[in-house]
Amino acid sequence: MEFIPKNIERVIEEFSKLPGIGSKTAERLAFYLLRKPNEDIKRFGETVGNLKEGIKYCGVCKSLTTEDICSICNNESRDKGTICIVEDMMDLIALEKANQYKGVYHVLHGVIAPVEGVGPDELTIAELIERVKKGGINEIIIALNPSMEGEATAAYITRYIRPMDIKITRIARGIPVGGDLEFADSQTLKRALEGRMDY
Amino acid sequence: MEFIPKNIERVIEEFSKLPGIGSKTAERLAFYLLRKPNEDIKRFGETVGNLKEGIKYCGVCKSLTTEDICSICNNESRDKGTICIVEDMMDLIALEKANQYKGVYHVLHGVIAPVEGVGPDELTIAELIERVKKGGINEIIIALNPSMEGEATAAYITRYIRPMDIKITRIARGIPVGGDLEFADSQTLKRALEGRMDY
Repeated sequence: MEFIPKNIERVIEEFSKLPGIGSKTAERLAFYLLRKPNEDIKRFGETVGNLKEGIKYCGVCKSLTTEDICSICNNESRDKGTICIVEDMMDLIALEKANQYKGVYHVLHGVIAPVEGVGPDELTIAELIERVKKGGINEIIIALNPSMEGEATAAYITRYIRPMDIKITRIARGIPVGGDLEFADSQTLKRALEGRMDY
Repeated sequence: MEFIPKNIERVIEEFSKLPGIGSKTAERLAFYLLRKPNEDIKRFGETVGNLKEGIKYCGVCKSLTTEDICSICNNESRDKGTICIVEDMMDLIALEKANQYKGVYHVLHGVIAPVEGVGPDELTIAELIERVKKGGINEIIIALNPSMEGEATAAYITRYIRPMDIKITRIARGIPVGGDLEFADSQTLKRALEGRMDY
C-alpha cells in the first residue's frame, strides 16, 4: 500500500502482530490514534516502550514486580503458609480481583506443553520445589486451567510435593456462577457432581 | 491493583483507551508484549510514538501523506478529472485495495453530524468546492456510507456542485457479493431493485 505514509503503515503492521488484532482492526487503531493530539500518541508510545523497564521476577513467588520481593509476598497480612500455583500473571490478577484469597502465589509462567516445546525446566517448578522444601508451607492450592497441559503440569508438580506431607488441593470445577446447566458440557457436569458439597 | 507494577498498569490503561479494546483484552496485550524481547517492545513504542511524524494533508485531495502532494494525486496514470469523495482514509484504503478505481480522491475527514458537533466547516468541503471550481473535473463520485450523516453530507455537497454542470454519481447500493437476498434488509433490497442493470 504505497499510498499510505510509511509511519502509518508501520504502526498498522505493529498492531496487527498483537494477538486477536487483524489487519482491519490494526488499521482502525492506527487511524484512531492519528486523530489524537500528538502528545497523546507520544505518551502511548513511550508508556508501551517502557513496559519492561525495571520489571523482574519476585524472589519468592516469581510474579512480575519492580521490587526484589513483590507486594503480595511482602504483605504482612497474607498467609505465607498457603501457596496458590497459577499459570501466569493474568490468572493471578483474576484471583486477586475476586478478593477472596489471602495466601501467597507461585507463578509458573506457563504450563508443560511438549507440543510447543515447553518442558518443566522452562517453568519455575524447580524454584517452587525449593521454596516448599524450605518448610513452613501448610497447603498448596493448584489453580491451573483444566486443560490437558494444566492437568499434566499439576500431576508433575504433585509428584514432587506429595511425599512432603503437605495438603494439596485444587480449585473446584463446576457450573460457573450465572452459567446454565443446560449448556454445560458433560465433563463439567461430571466434575460438578463429583465435587458436590453439603447443603 | 497495587500488586501490578506501575509500568504494566499504565500500558494496560493506554491499551484500554483504544476503541474496541476492553480492560481484559488490554491486560492480555500487555502481558503478551511482556513475553517479547525488550527491543521488540521498544520498537513497538517508538513506531507508534512516531505515527504522526511528518504526516500532513495532501495539498490537493487532503489525504494523509508525507509529501506536499500525495502519491495518488502525483500519479500520472490516474485520471485527475474524476474525483471520488470519501469520508476518511480507511474508506480510501478499502477502495484502493479493490484495485478498480483509477481516478483521484477527496477525503472529507468526517461527515456532517450535528449531534456530535461536526458541521461542514470541520470537514474539507470548502477545499473540495474550491478544487472543483478550478475546472477540469468531469465526474464527482460520492462514496460516502449510506448512513443518515453520509446522506446529509452528500446532499450538502451536491447542492454546491449541481450548478457547475458536472456529472455527479454515487456508488451503487445493493446486495453485497457473497451476501444473501434472504437476509438483506428491505432498504437494501429497495435500492438493489432501483439500481437494477441490463443483463
